[in-house]
Amino acid sequence: MPTLLHLDSSADLRTSVSRALTARFATTWTEISPDHLVVQRDLHLDPLPHLPTNALHWAPRLRTADEVVPADAEQLQKVLIEELTNADVVVIGAPMYNWGMPSTLKAWIDYVQVSGLTSIIDEPTQPLAGKPVVIVSSRGASYGAGTPGEGTDFEVPSLVQPLGVAMGMDVTVVTTELTLATRLPALNPFAGQAADELEKAAQAMVDLARKLGAA
Amino acid sequence: MPTLLHLDSSADLRTSVSRALTARFATTWTEISPDHLVVQRDLHLDPLPHLPTNALHWAPRLRTADEVVPADAEQLQKVLIEELTNADVVVIGAPMYNWGMPSTLKAWIDYVQVSGLTSIIDEPTQPLAGKPVVIVSSRGASYGAGTPGEGTDFEVPSLVQPLGVAMGMDVTVVTTELTLATRLPALNPFAGQAADELEKAAQAMVDLARKLGAA
Repeated sequence: MPTLLHLDSSADLRTSVSRALTARFATTWTEISPDHLVVQRDLHLDPLPHLPTNALHWAPRLRTADEVVPADAEQLQKVLIEELTNADVVVIGAPMYNWGMPSTLKAWIDYVQVSGLTSIIDEPTQPLAGKPVVIVSSRGASYGAGTPGEGTDFEVPSLVQPLGVAMGMDVTVVTTELTLATRLPALNPFAGQAADELEKAAQAMVDLARKLGAA
Repeated sequence: MPTLLHLDSSADLRTSVSRALTARFATTWTEISPDHLVVQRDLHLDPLPHLPTNALHWAPRLRTADEVVPADAEQLQKVLIEELTNADVVVIGAPMYNWGMPSTLKAWIDYVQVSGLTSIIDEPTQPLAGKPVVIVSSRGASYGAGTPGEGTDFEVPSLVQPLGVAMGMDVTVVTTELTLATRLPALNPFAGQAADELEKAAQAMVDLARKLGAA
Protein backbone atom coordinates (compact mmCIF):
# COMPACT_ATOMS: atom_id res chain seq x y z
CA MET A 1 0.00 0.00 0.00
CA PRO A 2 1.47 3.40 -0.96
CA THR A 3 2.57 5.01 2.28
CA LEU A 4 3.23 8.68 2.96
CA LEU A 5 5.36 9.72 5.93
CA HIS A 6 3.98 13.08 7.05
CA LEU A 7 6.31 15.09 9.29
CA ASP A 8 5.59 18.44 10.90
CA SER A 9 7.89 20.56 13.01
CA SER A 10 6.11 23.88 13.41
CA ALA A 11 5.76 25.12 16.99
CA ASP A 12 2.58 26.94 15.96
CA LEU A 13 -0.54 24.84 16.37
CA ARG A 14 -2.98 27.61 15.45
CA THR A 15 -1.91 29.44 12.33
CA SER A 16 1.01 27.43 10.95
CA VAL A 17 1.38 27.70 7.20
CA SER A 18 3.68 24.68 6.93
CA ARG A 19 1.16 22.55 8.83
CA ALA A 20 -1.65 23.69 6.54
CA LEU A 21 0.39 22.78 3.48
CA THR A 22 1.57 19.35 4.63
CA ALA A 23 -2.01 18.59 5.69
CA ARG A 24 -3.13 19.51 2.19
CA PHE A 25 -0.57 17.09 0.80
CA ALA A 26 -1.69 14.30 3.16
CA THR A 27 -5.37 14.83 2.42
CA THR A 28 -4.76 14.70 -1.31
CA TRP A 29 -2.71 11.54 -0.81
CA THR A 30 -5.50 9.72 1.03
CA GLU A 31 -8.05 10.85 -1.55
CA ILE A 32 -6.19 9.03 -4.33
CA SER A 33 -7.43 5.66 -3.09
CA PRO A 34 -8.42 3.88 0.12
CA ASP A 35 -5.09 2.04 -0.18
CA HIS A 36 -3.08 5.21 0.27
CA LEU A 37 -1.86 5.32 3.86
CA VAL A 38 -0.44 8.15 5.91
CA VAL A 39 1.97 7.70 8.80
CA GLN A 40 2.13 10.92 10.76
CA ARG A 41 4.93 12.06 13.05
CA ASP A 42 4.65 15.40 14.76
CA LEU A 43 8.15 16.42 15.76
CA HIS A 44 6.79 19.32 17.79
CA LEU A 45 3.97 17.63 19.70
CA ASP A 46 5.98 14.45 20.17
CA PRO A 47 9.54 15.82 20.19
CA LEU A 48 12.62 13.66 19.86
CA PRO A 49 15.22 13.95 22.57
CA HIS A 50 18.40 15.67 21.45
CA LEU A 51 20.98 13.12 20.31
CA PRO A 52 22.40 11.62 23.54
CA THR A 53 25.75 10.71 21.97
CA ASN A 54 27.63 11.45 18.77
CA ALA A 55 28.12 7.69 18.36
CA LEU A 56 24.65 7.69 16.77
CA HIS A 57 26.16 9.46 13.76
CA TRP A 58 27.81 6.14 12.85
CA ALA A 59 26.58 2.74 11.72
CA PRO A 60 27.21 0.26 14.54
CA ARG A 61 30.04 -1.37 12.56
CA LEU A 62 31.83 1.99 12.39
CA ARG A 63 31.60 2.88 16.07
CA THR A 64 34.77 2.72 18.09
CA ALA A 65 35.09 0.13 20.85
CA ASP A 66 34.52 2.70 23.58
CA GLU A 67 31.48 4.35 22.00
CA VAL A 68 28.43 3.27 23.93
CA VAL A 69 24.91 4.02 22.75
CA PRO A 70 22.03 3.85 25.24
CA ALA A 71 19.62 1.08 24.24
CA ASP A 72 16.59 3.39 24.08
CA ALA A 73 18.37 5.79 21.75
CA GLU A 74 19.51 2.93 19.54
CA GLN A 75 15.94 1.67 19.40
CA LEU A 76 14.56 5.14 18.62
CA GLN A 77 17.04 5.59 15.79
CA LYS A 78 16.01 2.20 14.40
CA VAL A 79 12.31 3.13 14.52
CA LEU A 80 12.90 6.46 12.79
CA ILE A 81 14.97 4.93 10.00
CA GLU A 82 12.48 2.10 9.51
CA GLU A 83 9.66 4.62 9.30
CA LEU A 84 11.56 6.45 6.59
CA THR A 85 12.50 3.23 4.82
CA ASN A 86 8.90 1.99 4.81
CA ALA A 87 7.53 5.22 3.35
CA ASP A 88 7.10 5.56 -0.39
CA VAL A 89 6.98 9.33 -0.18
CA VAL A 90 7.87 11.81 2.57
CA VAL A 91 6.52 15.30 3.17
CA ILE A 92 8.27 17.52 5.72
CA GLY A 93 6.82 20.70 7.18
CA ALA A 94 9.85 22.90 7.78
CA PRO A 95 9.10 26.44 8.95
CA MET A 96 12.14 28.69 8.91
CA TYR A 97 13.13 29.65 12.47
CA ASN A 98 15.99 32.12 12.73
CA TRP A 99 17.25 31.35 9.20
CA GLY A 100 17.39 27.62 9.86
CA MET A 101 15.21 24.67 10.73
CA PRO A 102 13.48 24.16 14.09
CA SER A 103 15.60 22.23 16.61
CA THR A 104 12.95 19.50 16.56
CA LEU A 105 13.61 18.86 12.87
CA LYS A 106 17.39 19.00 13.31
CA ALA A 107 17.10 16.33 16.00
CA TRP A 108 15.27 14.12 13.48
CA ILE A 109 17.92 14.75 10.81
CA ASP A 110 20.64 13.81 13.28
CA TYR A 111 18.91 10.49 14.06
CA VAL A 112 18.32 9.45 10.43
CA GLN A 113 21.47 10.72 8.69
CA VAL A 114 23.88 7.97 9.71
CA SER A 115 27.27 7.48 8.11
CA GLY A 116 27.60 3.97 6.74
CA LEU A 117 23.94 3.19 7.32
CA THR A 118 21.85 5.73 5.38
CA SER A 119 24.71 7.61 3.70
CA ILE A 120 28.03 6.80 2.12
CA ILE A 121 31.17 6.99 4.16
CA ASP A 122 33.39 4.08 3.13
CA GLU A 123 31.06 1.83 1.11
CA PRO A 124 28.21 2.78 -1.28
CA THR A 125 25.50 2.72 1.40
CA GLN A 126 22.46 4.73 0.28
CA PRO A 127 19.39 2.55 0.91
CA LEU A 128 17.01 5.51 0.64
CA ALA A 129 18.35 6.75 -2.70
CA GLY A 130 15.64 7.92 -5.04
CA LYS A 131 12.85 8.09 -2.46
CA PRO A 132 10.79 11.23 -3.08
CA VAL A 133 10.78 13.78 -0.27
CA VAL A 134 8.92 17.08 -0.41
CA ILE A 135 10.27 19.83 1.86
CA VAL A 136 7.77 22.57 2.65
CA SER A 137 9.65 25.62 3.85
CA SER A 138 7.51 28.53 5.04
CA ARG A 139 9.26 31.74 5.94
CA GLY A 140 8.19 35.11 7.31
CA ALA A 141 10.03 37.34 4.86
CA SER A 142 11.58 37.05 1.37
CA TYR A 143 14.79 35.24 0.54
CA GLY A 144 14.76 35.19 -3.24
CA ALA A 145 17.19 36.91 -5.58
CA GLY A 146 17.05 40.68 -5.25
CA THR A 147 15.27 40.65 -1.89
CA PRO A 148 16.81 41.84 1.40
CA GLY A 149 16.97 38.22 2.61
CA GLU A 150 18.89 36.97 -0.42
CA GLY A 151 21.64 34.57 0.60
CA THR A 152 20.38 34.03 4.16
CA ASP A 153 18.12 31.01 3.70
CA PHE A 154 20.26 28.45 5.49
CA GLU A 155 17.34 26.14 6.09
CA VAL A 156 16.76 24.65 2.64
CA PRO A 157 20.43 23.87 1.95
CA SER A 158 20.76 22.37 5.46
CA LEU A 159 17.95 19.96 4.59
CA VAL A 160 18.91 19.24 0.99
CA GLN A 161 22.50 18.37 1.91
CA PRO A 162 21.74 15.45 4.27
CA LEU A 163 18.52 14.22 2.63
CA GLY A 164 19.29 14.84 -1.02
CA VAL A 165 23.06 14.68 -1.33
CA ALA A 166 24.24 12.39 1.48
CA MET A 167 21.23 10.06 1.54
CA GLY A 168 20.45 10.47 -2.16
CA MET A 169 16.74 11.05 -1.77
CA ASP A 170 14.82 12.78 -4.55
CA VAL A 171 14.13 16.16 -2.97
CA THR A 172 11.54 18.68 -4.11
CA VAL A 173 11.45 21.99 -2.26
CA VAL A 174 8.28 24.06 -2.03
CA THR A 175 8.67 27.45 -0.37
CA THR A 176 6.09 29.99 0.61
CA GLU A 177 7.31 33.42 1.65
CA LEU A 178 6.17 36.52 3.50
CA THR A 179 4.03 34.60 5.98
CA LEU A 180 4.46 37.56 8.36
CA ALA A 181 2.98 40.02 5.85
CA THR A 182 -0.24 40.38 7.81
CA ARG A 183 1.53 40.55 11.17
CA LEU A 184 4.34 43.04 10.57
CA PRO A 185 3.32 46.55 9.48
CA ALA A 186 6.49 46.89 7.38
CA LEU A 187 5.49 43.81 5.38
CA ASN A 188 1.80 44.71 5.00
CA PRO A 189 2.31 45.95 1.43
CA PHE A 190 3.30 42.39 0.50
CA ALA A 191 0.13 40.73 1.82
CA GLY A 192 -1.17 40.17 -1.69
CA GLN A 193 2.07 38.56 -2.80
CA ALA A 194 2.04 36.35 0.31
CA ALA A 195 -1.49 35.20 -0.48
CA ASP A 196 -0.50 34.41 -4.07
CA GLU A 197 2.53 32.44 -2.91
CA LEU A 198 0.44 30.47 -0.44
CA GLU A 199 -2.11 29.63 -3.09
CA LYS A 200 0.61 28.44 -5.44
CA ALA A 201 2.20 26.35 -2.69
CA ALA A 202 -1.16 24.78 -1.83
CA GLN A 203 -1.67 23.88 -5.48
CA ALA A 204 1.84 22.43 -5.58
CA MET A 205 0.88 20.18 -2.64
CA VAL A 206 -2.11 18.83 -4.56
CA ASP A 207 -0.16 18.36 -7.78
CA LEU A 208 2.83 16.71 -6.10
CA ALA A 209 0.72 14.40 -3.94
CA ARG A 210 -1.26 13.24 -6.97
CA LYS A 211 1.85 12.76 -9.08
CA LEU A 212 3.87 10.97 -6.44
CA GLY A 213 0.88 9.00 -5.22
CA ALA A 214 0.18 7.71 -8.72
CA ALA A 215 3.72 6.51 -9.27
CA MET B 1 34.09 41.21 37.39
CA PRO B 2 34.80 40.18 33.78
CA THR B 3 32.49 37.26 33.08
CA LEU B 4 32.80 34.62 30.37
CA LEU B 5 29.77 32.62 29.30
CA HIS B 6 31.11 29.22 28.27
CA LEU B 7 28.70 27.15 26.16
CA ASP B 8 29.28 23.64 24.88
CA SER B 9 27.01 21.56 22.65
CA SER B 10 29.09 18.55 21.66
CA ALA B 11 27.44 15.17 22.25
CA ASP B 12 30.91 13.66 22.68
CA LEU B 13 32.12 13.73 26.27
CA ARG B 14 35.31 11.76 25.61
CA THR B 15 37.18 13.06 22.60
CA SER B 16 35.38 16.27 21.64
CA VAL B 17 37.60 18.80 19.92
CA SER B 18 35.20 21.70 20.43
CA ARG B 19 35.03 20.95 24.17
CA ALA B 20 38.82 20.86 24.42
CA LEU B 21 39.07 24.21 22.67
CA THR B 22 36.39 26.04 24.66
CA ALA B 23 37.95 24.63 27.86
CA ARG B 24 41.28 26.07 26.75
CA PHE B 25 39.59 29.43 26.28
CA ALA B 26 37.95 29.26 29.72
CA THR B 27 41.15 28.21 31.47
CA THR B 28 43.06 31.06 29.87
CA TRP B 29 40.28 33.43 30.91
CA THR B 30 40.44 32.44 34.58
CA GLU B 31 44.23 32.65 34.55
CA ILE B 32 44.13 36.34 33.66
CA SER B 33 43.11 37.29 37.19
CA PRO B 34 41.17 35.92 40.16
CA ASP B 35 38.44 38.38 39.20
CA HIS B 36 37.79 36.67 35.87
CA LEU B 37 34.68 34.53 36.27
CA VAL B 38 33.29 31.74 34.09
CA VAL B 39 29.61 30.85 33.85
CA GLN B 40 29.32 27.46 32.21
CA ARG B 41 26.27 26.08 30.42
CA ASP B 42 26.46 22.65 28.88
CA LEU B 43 23.71 22.44 26.27
CA HIS B 44 24.31 18.72 25.86
CA LEU B 45 24.50 17.57 29.48
CA ASP B 46 21.75 19.98 30.54
CA PRO B 47 19.72 20.25 27.32
CA LEU B 48 17.08 22.89 26.73
CA PRO B 49 13.64 21.69 25.75
CA HIS B 50 12.72 22.38 22.16
CA LEU B 51 10.81 25.68 21.88
CA PRO B 52 7.27 24.89 23.10
CA THR B 53 5.66 27.66 21.06
CA ASN B 54 6.64 29.99 18.26
CA ALA B 55 5.32 32.87 20.39
CA LEU B 56 8.76 32.83 22.08
CA HIS B 57 10.22 34.24 18.85
CA TRP B 58 8.58 37.55 19.76
CA ALA B 59 9.05 40.13 22.50
CA PRO B 60 5.98 40.02 24.77
CA ARG B 61 4.75 43.37 23.39
CA LEU B 62 4.71 41.89 19.87
CA ARG B 63 2.80 38.70 20.67
CA THR B 64 -0.75 38.47 19.46
CA ALA B 65 -3.59 38.35 21.98
CA ASP B 66 -4.09 34.62 21.51
CA GLU B 67 -0.43 33.65 21.78
CA VAL B 68 0.09 32.04 25.14
CA VAL B 69 3.54 31.18 26.48
CA PRO B 70 3.89 28.63 29.29
CA ALA B 71 5.28 30.32 32.41
CA ASP B 72 8.24 27.95 32.70
CA ALA B 73 9.30 28.57 29.09
CA GLU B 74 8.98 32.31 29.56
CA GLN B 75 11.15 32.05 32.68
CA LEU B 76 13.73 29.89 30.91
CA GLN B 77 13.98 32.38 28.04
CA LYS B 78 14.47 35.18 30.57
CA VAL B 79 17.27 33.27 32.34
CA LEU B 80 19.07 32.49 29.07
CA ILE B 81 18.91 36.07 27.85
CA GLU B 82 20.03 37.43 31.22
CA GLU B 83 22.95 35.03 31.22
CA LEU B 84 23.97 36.33 27.81
CA THR B 85 23.40 39.93 28.82
CA ASN B 86 25.49 39.57 31.97
CA ALA B 87 28.43 38.03 30.12
CA ASP B 88 31.24 40.24 28.90
CA VAL B 89 32.43 37.61 26.45
CA VAL B 90 30.85 34.40 25.11
CA VAL B 91 32.56 31.27 23.78
CA ILE B 92 30.44 28.66 22.01
CA GLY B 93 31.54 25.13 21.26
CA ALA B 94 29.79 24.28 18.00
CA PRO B 95 30.71 20.93 16.46
CA MET B 96 29.36 20.51 12.95
CA TYR B 97 26.72 17.78 12.87
CA ASN B 98 25.36 16.93 9.43
CA TRP B 99 26.51 20.25 7.95
CA GLY B 100 24.76 22.28 10.64
CA MET B 101 24.76 22.87 14.37
CA PRO B 102 23.62 20.32 16.97
CA SER B 103 19.91 20.54 17.80
CA THR B 104 20.90 21.47 21.35
CA LEU B 105 22.60 24.63 20.12
CA LYS B 106 19.74 25.49 17.75
CA ALA B 107 17.33 25.28 20.68
CA TRP B 108 19.49 27.83 22.53
CA ILE B 109 19.57 30.14 19.48
CA ASP B 110 15.79 29.94 19.23
CA TYR B 111 15.39 30.98 22.89
CA VAL B 112 17.79 33.95 22.74
CA GLN B 113 17.14 35.36 19.25
CA VAL B 114 13.91 37.24 19.95
CA SER B 115 12.41 39.77 17.57
CA GLY B 116 11.92 43.10 19.30
CA LEU B 117 13.83 42.00 22.39
CA THR B 118 17.36 41.01 21.31
CA SER B 119 17.07 41.88 17.61
CA ILE B 120 15.50 44.59 15.49
CA ILE B 121 12.07 44.09 14.05
CA ASP B 122 10.25 47.42 14.28
CA GLU B 123 12.42 49.48 16.62
CA PRO B 124 16.24 49.60 16.96
CA THR B 125 16.39 46.90 19.68
CA GLN B 126 19.88 45.36 19.86
CA PRO B 127 20.88 45.33 23.53
CA LEU B 128 23.69 42.82 22.94
CA ALA B 129 25.30 44.73 20.07
CA GLY B 130 29.07 44.69 20.19
CA LYS B 131 29.40 41.91 22.77
CA PRO B 132 32.26 39.62 21.71
CA VAL B 133 31.31 36.03 20.92
CA VAL B 134 33.77 33.37 19.80
CA ILE B 135 32.29 30.48 17.82
CA VAL B 136 34.41 27.33 17.82
CA SER B 137 33.33 25.16 14.91
CA SER B 138 35.02 21.75 14.70
CA ARG B 139 34.29 19.62 11.67
CA GLY B 140 35.23 16.16 10.51
CA ALA B 141 36.25 17.00 6.97
CA SER B 142 37.32 20.09 4.98
CA TYR B 143 35.05 22.89 3.89
CA GLY B 144 37.45 25.52 2.64
CA ALA B 145 37.84 26.83 -0.91
CA GLY B 146 38.94 24.10 -3.29
CA THR B 147 38.04 21.22 -0.96
CA PRO B 148 35.26 18.68 -1.64
CA GLY B 149 33.17 20.24 1.16
CA GLU B 150 33.36 23.77 -0.26
CA GLY B 151 30.02 25.53 -0.01
CA THR B 152 28.45 23.03 2.39
CA ASP B 153 29.32 24.56 5.74
CA PHE B 154 25.85 25.68 6.74
CA GLU B 155 26.73 25.82 10.41
CA VAL B 156 28.85 28.94 10.61
CA PRO B 157 26.49 31.13 8.57
CA SER B 158 23.52 29.81 10.59
CA LEU B 159 25.23 31.03 13.74
CA VAL B 160 26.64 34.29 12.39
CA GLN B 161 23.27 35.40 11.01
CA PRO B 162 21.33 35.43 14.31
CA LEU B 163 24.21 36.29 16.65
CA GLY B 164 26.22 38.64 14.48
CA VAL B 165 23.75 40.20 12.08
CA ALA B 166 20.39 40.14 13.86
CA MET B 167 21.66 40.62 17.41
CA GLY B 168 24.70 42.65 16.36
CA MET B 169 27.22 40.77 18.47
CA ASP B 170 30.90 40.95 17.57
CA VAL B 171 31.49 37.43 16.22
CA THR B 172 34.85 35.74 15.76
CA VAL B 173 34.81 32.29 14.17
CA VAL B 174 37.54 29.74 14.85
CA THR B 175 37.32 26.55 12.85
CA THR B 176 39.32 23.37 13.09
CA GLU B 177 38.91 20.85 10.30
CA LEU B 178 39.55 17.19 9.54
CA THR B 179 38.81 16.03 13.08
CA LEU B 180 37.96 12.63 11.58
CA ALA B 181 41.40 12.28 9.96
CA THR B 182 42.51 9.65 12.46
CA ARG B 183 39.17 7.83 12.35
CA LEU B 184 38.43 7.53 8.64
CA PRO B 185 40.98 5.68 6.51
CA ALA B 186 40.23 7.93 3.53
CA LEU B 187 41.20 10.96 5.60
CA ASN B 188 44.29 9.43 7.24
CA PRO B 189 46.65 11.25 4.84
CA PHE B 190 45.37 14.51 6.32
CA ALA B 191 46.19 13.64 9.93
CA GLY B 192 49.17 15.99 9.96
CA GLN B 193 47.11 18.85 8.61
CA ALA B 194 44.41 18.14 11.20
CA ALA B 195 46.98 18.27 14.00
CA ASP B 196 48.34 21.57 12.68
CA GLU B 197 44.86 23.04 12.50
CA LEU B 198 44.07 21.95 16.02
CA GLU B 199 47.27 23.47 17.34
CA LYS B 200 46.50 26.75 15.59
CA ALA B 201 42.95 26.73 16.95
CA ALA B 202 44.21 26.06 20.48
CA GLN B 203 46.61 28.98 20.18
CA ALA B 204 43.76 31.13 18.87
CA MET B 205 41.81 30.26 22.04
CA VAL B 206 44.65 31.47 24.23
CA ASP B 207 45.22 34.63 22.21
CA LEU B 208 41.52 35.51 21.99
CA ALA B 209 40.83 34.83 25.66
CA ARG B 210 43.79 37.04 26.72
CA LYS B 211 42.83 39.82 24.32
CA LEU B 212 39.14 39.83 25.16
CA GLY B 213 39.81 39.29 28.87
CA ALA B 214 42.12 42.30 29.01
CA ALA B 215 39.65 44.63 27.36
